[in-house]
Amino acid sequence: MKIKGKHYRTIWEKPGDNTTIRIIDQTLLPHKFEIVNLRTVDDFATAIKDMLVRGAPLIGATAGYGMYIAALNAPKNDYFSDFINISAKKLISTRPTAKNLEWAVNEMIGAIQSENTIDGKIGAALAKARKIADDDVEQCRKIGVYGMDIISEIFQKTGKRVNILTHCNAGWLATVDFGTATSPIYHAFESGIDLHVWVDETRPRNQGAKLTAFELGEQGVPHTVIVDNAGGHLMQHGLVDLVIVGSDRTTRTGDVANKIGTYLKALAAMDNNIPFYAALPSTTIDWEMEDGIKNIPIEERNPDEVRFIDGLNSGEIKNVLVPPEGSPVANFAFDVTPARLVTGLITERGICKADKNSIMELFPEKNEVK
Amino acid sequence: MKIKGKHYRTIWEKPGDNTTIRIIDQTLLPHKFEIVNLRTVDDFATAIKDMLVRGAPLIGATAGYGMYIAALNAPKNDYFSDFINISAKKLISTRPTAKNLEWAVNEMIGAIQSENTIDGKIGAALAKARKIADDDVEQCRKIGVYGMDIISEIFQKTGKRVNILTHCNAGWLATVDFGTATSPIYHAFESGIDLHVWVDETRPRNQGAKLTAFELGEQGVPHTVIVDNAGGHLMQHGLVDLVIVGSDRTTRTGDVANKIGTYLKALAAMDNNIPFYAALPSTTIDWEMEDGIKNIPIEERNPDEVRFIDGLNSGEIKNVLVPPEGSPVANFAFDVTPARLVTGLITERGICKADKNSIMELFPEKNEVK
Repeated sequence: MKIKGKHYRTIWEKPGDNTTIRIIDQTLLPHKFEIVNLRTVDDFATAIKDMLVRGAPLIGATAGYGMYIAALNAPKNDYFSDFINISAKKLISTRPTAKNLEWAVNEMIGAIQSENTIDGKIGAALAKARKIADDDVEQCRKIGVYGMDIISEIFQKTGKRVNILTHCNAGWLATVDFGTATSPIYHAFESGIDLHVWVDETRPRNQGAKLTAFELGEQGVPHTVIVDNAGGHLMQHGLVDLVIVGSDRTTRTGDVANKIGTYLKALAAMDNNIPFYAALPSTTIDWEMEDGIKNIPIEERNPDEVRFIDGLNSGEIKNVLVPPEGSPVANFAFDVTPARLVTGLITERGICKADKNSIMELFPEKNEVK
Repeated sequence: MKIKGKHYRTIWEKPGDNTTIRIIDQTLLPHKFEIVNLRTVDDFATAIKDMLVRGAPLIGATAGYGMYIAALNAPKNDYFSDFINISAKKLISTRPTAKNLEWAVNEMIGAIQSENTIDGKIGAALAKARKIADDDVEQCRKIGVYGMDIISEIFQKTGKRVNILTHCNAGWLATVDFGTATSPIYHAFESGIDLHVWVDETRPRNQGAKLTAFELGEQGVPHTVIVDNAGGHLMQHGLVDLVIVGSDRTTRTGDVANKIGTYLKALAAMDNNIPFYAALPSTTIDWEMEDGIKNIPIEERNPDEVRFIDGLNSGEIKNVLVPPEGSPVANFAFDVTPARLVTGLITERGICKADKNSIMELFPEKNEVK
C-alpha cells in the first residue's frame, strides 16, 4: 500500500542489494516514518522483540528473511548448521507466543536443508523468504476480493456511503500488504465504492488510532477516529452499516479471539442488527478447538501498557502516566467473540458462516484430519 | 470522604472565615492534590468553566456558594440587585448544558429575594448554599444505604468477595460527598463486606482512571483499573458480580443516559446474566421523556479530548497527541442504555425497576404532573 504516495510493503529487499532487508519502524508511527536496515540476525531479533514489526503475518515474514540473512552470514564451513540453529532459536525466542514465527523459521530450515551446497542453501533460503512474503500478500489480496462483495452489496442496496467500523489494526502494517480486515475496505475503495471507516482507537496500545488511521489516511480512505466506547452509540443511531475485524485465533466452530473489546462491538452489532465479520487467513483457524471462551488462553500483558500512553509532545514521542501511581492495573490483551455473534468469516477461500459445517465446507481437507 | 486520611467534602467554607470557599482542583488529580480558595464570583465562574469542579451535583453546589459570594461582594446600595443578576448570568453561562447549574442559581435568587435587608439577604444566601450542599450529601447517603443491600445480598449468597464494575466517575468527587454509583460501594465497604471494584478508565477524559481510582485508593477500597475494552472479557469469565453506573439523565421509562460506553457494558452484563444498576438522585429523571435513544440529545465535544491524553511525565502534567495529526476525530460524550438492559435504578427513595410503573410507584407525586 502507499505511504506519501509511494508503494511499500512492510518488508522488502534493498534495491540492488539483497543482503540488506528493510522494514518500517512501526513504533514511531504515525508521528515519524523511518525505514530501518536489517543486516544481521541480531537486527532481526531486535526488530521483532522491540515490535518495530508486529502482527502475526508480518512477524512470520520477518523471521523468514531473518533466517535467509542467517544463511548469508553463517560461516562457510562445518559451523554453518550450528549458526543456522542458533539463529533459529534466537528468532523464535523473541515473541514466544507467536506460533506463526516458529512456523516460518521451520519452513526456512526445511528450505535450507533441501540443498547440499552453501550457495544452494543461501539461494533456497532467499527463494523461501520471498515466497513466505508473497504468499501472505496473495492470501490478503484474496480476502480483499471476497470481502469487498459484502461492502459492494450494502452499497448497491442503500445507494449511500457505507460506514464500516473496525477495531485494532488488522491492516497492511500487520501483514506484508493489504491487511486482513482492511483488505476488503481497500479493494472496495479502489473500485470506487463510497465508504467511510470508524476507527476504534483500541486501548491500551492504540493500534487503531496510531496504525489503522495512519494507513487509511495515506490511502486517502475517509475515516474518523473514535474512542472504543463510542461504537454502540454510533450503531444505535444508524451510523454503522458493517463491522469488520481481524482474528488472532478462530475455533473450528467459529469463535473469534481478537483484540480486547471486539466482543463488546459484536454485542452492539447484534443488538442493532448490523453484520459483523471477521477477516482472517485460514492459518489462524485452530482445527482442534471447539469452545473458544473456555479454551483460548488470554494473554495478560504488562500493566504499564495501560498506565502509560505515548504520543507526540513538542515534536518528541513521550509517555504520560494516567492513573494514580499506586492503583493496581490489569491488562488483558484479547477477548473471545462467540460464533453466535459473528455473521461470517472472510477467508482466502471465500466467505462462510461462523459455524463448524460452513467452515468445513470451505476447507474440506481439514475434515479428514478430525 | 477521605484524602490522605483526612475527611473532605468537595466544597467547604474556610474554617473561621466563611467569606472564602474552598474546592479541590480536580484537573490536577490524581497526580497533584491542590486546594483552591474562591473569593469572587469570577473565581467561581472560572472554577466551573475550567472544570476544577465537575459533575452535575457539585456544579450545582458550587454555583450555590458562588451566588452567596455574589451577595457578600455586591455593593450595599441600589446596585445590589444588578450585581446579583449579572453574577447569576455569569455563573449560568459557564456550562450552558448543565441544568443543575441553572436550578441552583435560581434557588439562590429566590433565597436572596426572600429577605428585605442586605444583611438578611446575605444570611439567607449562606443558609441556602449550605442547604444545597447538605441536601446533596443526604441524597447520596441514602442512595448508598439503599444500594448497599444489593451488594450485601450478593455477598450473603456467594460468601465470596463481590466484584463490582463501574464506568466513569459517579463518585464523591462529582458530588459534595459519597457520590452516586460509589455510595453503595463505600457503604458496603465500611460495613465490612469484602469487595473489589473494576474501574473502567473511561476514555476519552479518563475520569475512571484519574478520579474513581484515586477516590477508591484514598478510601482503601480494593480496585483495579482496566481499559474500557476489558469489561466484556471479565464478565464472560465470572469476574464481575455486579455493575453500578451513574446517570446524567434518566427517562420516566427507565432509559439511562450516561458516559459514552455505558451501553456496551450493559449489553455485556445482559449477555452474561449480571445485574446492571444505575444509581441516581431523582433530580436526574426527566419526567416528560419516554424514548431516551430517540430524544436525549448527545453532546459532541471537542475532538482534542480524544486526540490528546494528559498525564504525568517527569513530575509535570503534559499531554501527548495519539492519532495522526491529519486524521478526523469524533467525540460523542454520552450514550443511552435502553431500560430493557437495566436491572434497576437506585434512588434516594429506594430501588425500583427501570420501567414507568416502578418509577412512578416510588415517586407517586410525579404521576399527577403527567
